[in-house]
Amino acid sequence: MKATVHVTLKDGVLDPQGKAIGNALHGLGFGEVGEVRQGKLIELEIDGNDPEAAKARLDEMCRKLLANPVIERYAIEVAS
Amino acid sequence: MKATVHVTLKDGVLDPQGKAIGNALHGLGFGEVGEVRQGKLIELEIDGNDPEAAKARLDEMCRKLLANPVIERYAIEVAS
Repeated sequence: MKATVHVTLKDGVLDPQGKAIGNALHGLGFGEVGEVRQGKLIELEIDGNDPEAAKARLDEMCRKLLANPVIERYAIEVAS
Repeated sequence: MKATVHVTLKDGVLDPQGKAIGNALHGLGFGEVGEVRQGKLIELEIDGNDPEAAKARLDEMCRKLLANPVIERYAIEVAS
């Protein structure tokens, strides 16, 4: 199965990288751009064919390694 | 409007960061994980109310700054 994990900073957490991207876009003439936030996108190939079980395991992976739950939130999608 | 840009490495481009994540997950006992690829997720706030126009501008932003079209592909989503 293919799984996708989106990891983004929680609201209120400063995002200097996103700010730098926003400033660079303004400098290039994209004045319509407001706030920019940068996150991570992790695509995983998972053995097995139970999407619910995979989701539970992915949640564990996020808590243990992929995301920092103190400052980041994550979303898991499993495409069977 | 809120827009999301997914930037991922093209197939065939080596992804050492994804490989490192995969190895770490194996080390933590997640043996069911196969290939892992890491990409970027960029969330932007865009002024205006024409999703088609915003999409065209975002495509320009991707080509000019957000992605490296030689090794990366990108997908744009606009939520009006």
